[in-house]
Amino acid sequence: MRLSLLEYNKMTYDNNDTICAISTPPGVGGIAVARVSGPKAIEIVNSLWRGRPLTEADTHTAHLGTITDSIGRPLDHAVSTVYRSPRSFTGEDVVEISVHGSRFVQRELLDTLTHAGARLAEPGEFTRRAFTSGRMDLAEAEAVADVIASNSRAAHRIAMSQMRGDYSRRLSSLRDRLIDLSALLELELDFSEEEVEFASRKHLLQIAGDIHSEVTRLHRSFASGAAIKDGIPVAIVGATNAGKSSLLNALIGDERAIVSDIHGTTRDTIEETLEIGDYMFRFIDTAGLRDTTDTIERIGIDRSHQAIARARIVILVTDSTLPADSTLYTRISDCMRTKDTAPAHLIVALNKTDLTTPTSQTQYEENPQVSVVKISALTGYGIETLRQTLHDIALRENGNADEGILVTNARHAQALSMAAASSARILTAMTDGLPGDLIAQDVRETIHHLSEITGTISTTDILTTIFSRFCIGK
Amino acid sequence: MRLSLLEYNKMTYDNNDTICAISTPPGVGGIAVARVSGPKAIEIVNSLWRGRPLTEADTHTAHLGTITDSIGRPLDHAVSTVYRSPRSFTGEDVVEISVHGSRFVQRELLDTLTHAGARLAEPGEFTRRAFTSGRMDLAEAEAVADVIASNSRAAHRIAMSQMRGDYSRRLSSLRDRLIDLSALLELELDFSEEEVEFASRKHLLQIAGDIHSEVTRLHRSFASGAAIKDGIPVAIVGATNAGKSSLLNALIGDERAIVSDIHGTTRDTIEETLEIGDYMFRFIDTAGLRDTTDTIERIGIDRSHQAIARARIVILVTDSTLPADSTLYTRISDCMRTKDTAPAHLIVALNKTDLTTPTSQTQYEENPQVSVVKISALTGYGIETLRQTLHDIALRENGNADEGILVTNARHAQALSMAAASSARILTAMTDGLPGDLIAQDVRETIHHLSEITGTISTTDILTTIFSRFCIGK
Repeated sequence: MRLSLLEYNKMTYDNNDTICAISTPPGVGGIAVARVSGPKAIEIVNSLWRGRPLTEADTHTAHLGTITDSIGRPLDHAVSTVYRSPRSFTGEDVVEISVHGSRFVQRELLDTLTHAGARLAEPGEFTRRAFTSGRMDLAEAEAVADVIASNSRAAHRIAMSQMRGDYSRRLSSLRDRLIDLSALLELELDFSEEEVEFASRKHLLQIAGDIHSEVTRLHRSFASGAAIKDGIPVAIVGATNAGKSSLLNALIGDERAIVSDIHGTTRDTIEETLEIGDYMFRFIDTAGLRDTTDTIERIGIDRSHQAIARARIVILVTDSTLPADSTLYTRISDCMRTKDTAPAHLIVALNKTDLTTPTSQTQYEENPQVSVVKISALTGYGIETLRQTLHDIALRENGNADEGILVTNARHAQALSMAAASSARILTAMTDGLPGDLIAQDVRETIHHLSEITGTISTTDILTTIFSRFCIGK
Repeated sequence: MRLSLLEYNKMTYDNNDTICAISTPPGVGGIAVARVSGPKAIEIVNSLWRGRPLTEADTHTAHLGTITDSIGRPLDHAVSTVYRSPRSFTGEDVVEISVHGSRFVQRELLDTLTHAGARLAEPGEFTRRAFTSGRMDLAEAEAVADVIASNSRAAHRIAMSQMRGDYSRRLSSLRDRLIDLSALLELELDFSEEEVEFASRKHLLQIAGDIHSEVTRLHRSFASGAAIKDGIPVAIVGATNAGKSSLLNALIGDERAIVSDIHGTTRDTIEETLEIGDYMFRFIDTAGLRDTTDTIERIGIDRSHQAIARARIVILVTDSTLPADSTLYTRISDCMRTKDTAPAHLIVALNKTDLTTPTSQTQYEENPQVSVVKISALTGYGIETLRQTLHDIALRENGNADEGILVTNARHAQALSMAAASSARILTAMTDGLPGDLIAQDVRETIHHLSEITGTISTTDILTTIFSRFCIGK
């Protein structure tokens, strides 16, 4: 028997104990908030409380009092807000204690709470409890971590949409249509002897085709989704001394890069990130590209080739005082062509235009995938145009984020890849006129893969992995 | 006419506008809390709110809803807690908005709030409003910053006590006794012609003497108070190669130093801090001490002498395989003797005892101000004893923190120094039998200096300075 992730979670996860953590960012601030959740949350905090008893407090009420340490010494003036089950984030009884944000008070408060019977929460454990208690499905729970990690408007918009359940509803609608398809195929099977055609194969084929296109679209959206979530990868390449570093400095300017430091978001080594409009761009380090036979240098250059292959946008910086290097251009184009996803964009940045006439390099032709911008990293000429070009490409490539759903999670992308494969088999089987019972197996499998995403069907113990990506206190 | 700081504050500080800030530590976390305070706090947040109208919410109630940006797009799921004037931290209407702790959400929320009519708060401005509205006096308000900055149990205890008003009550009692004294002196004056003695000079002298001792004790407590608040300054000195650095490393061990990063706490360059029990110790960098005629080295050594003079504890590290250096010992003792506060403690750490017989250096005699500890920084022998010795000295010197009040604030220390001087003049004048009206001026002056501390009397515009030491959001 296959267990749903939710059932599996309930069997293996003990939520009879009460957990606590500092939920606000680490460090010193005006206030810090400790969150306590579980059956004894109110009782435990009340045992450390001087003020109106919290055990008598209504849900969603805030109380001023004094929190004491485990031997009754006053630790801080505090505001405790009581949320009673099921009307809380976790679905359990929750107390949020707002104290002065000193390191000492935060540390002592956790010590005191654990002495009084609470346990330090694992990363993501509050959200895991929200999932366990049915307050949100798995995709929505995962989106909570994405909302917290989001560092641009576009990334935030996708995560919010997923957290609010738009994505789950889309998957749920796909599953409903697959269940319909399955039922129609069963009917076809049951009554096949009687030669009554309940739904024409053509109609079934259309349903299956629509489902397959949507699953495929969702799967393909991962390239955009991941780029928006982690920052759109941009490789700056070019010959030595073409001005790659100067260009990067001119682009970044005085802006302070926003770098996410949330636990668990692993990514490549980032040199710099840059926010333009709604998008975050992530510049991938590349070594200079030149012909070489030296082994060590080759490795660096291979890495540059990989960076180009990973990038959604490649900026080729050329020294416009020199003749165009068509070999380099060809090599970069080749690297970009090895990608199996949508083609990346190339921006040719003709640098050092302050030193030359603007017409000296004309053989780079613009087309939908190639833009040419004249710049001077030294004087700043053309930098604003280049920023605008980056933004326009991001908007063109990802602008459908408003209408459609973008997949941002590698686990979901994998499940969708499996679902796309099995739904493709449904189509083939139907086109080949195979009987319904042979098709039904692939329908079930497609349903299974889609359900893995929201956590309603699965057998694996991936929950711990999922929630360990969270920061403590959420 | 002299204005009280409170009156001055009310005249010069506009609190008709509504202020906002992120009150939790900067960075990414599970949740972040924005605080909005002022006459339009509830109205402004409600204009961005989807959910039950906050304008109808009772005080001290928490509400789940969606916070939108200025053009109505959902920004985040949020909990808004409403505090109605005067039952709030600032005494004004306050809304605390708890959102997901992403950098993007925090930044957007502040943008949105300012678009909706709030203004970004200055550092400490919420606490300043609490002072303005009479929720706390100036000494209590200053203690809020100290509670937030405190990084040891002892520092926290002093700050909490001050925030809870223990210190203010002590000052208030002193002031009451000074007003009594003033009244008795007036009576003496009024009825002096009738030769009726209402209170004997001896009795008045005793009252004045008690007041003077207490003011002096408070003033002197600043040395301890500042040491506890900022870390007890410890200088490690000794000849080159005696093992100063190894000793420091052995002392610090694997412990992570807690270094306060709150704005405005300026202190010397710190090499390392170490928490032992309830106290924080701060090790002051010193150059090696040896006889030299080189000018550059002299400067370094002068700096070491200053470090010794500033330290509350000096650890003299000696190489116990070499004969004792009595010149060095004398020079250090001389440096320590130049202090005009309470004498510092000297610990002689006989290092390299793993290489020698433990009796080779016996001329360092223990006394209440000098401890001798045999150690080996290499093997770790004696390090625990040395830590214990540091702790015992801290406890002996500062253990009265529980009973008495320790002054930790330089502004207060300065006012107390003035009050000590004028109360000394009262005593002298009384002893010399001067008439009451001449003494009354010094009584008024003493009252004035004590009142400066709690902010009830002053003329200066020091409020901005005081509150700018705070972090944003408090």
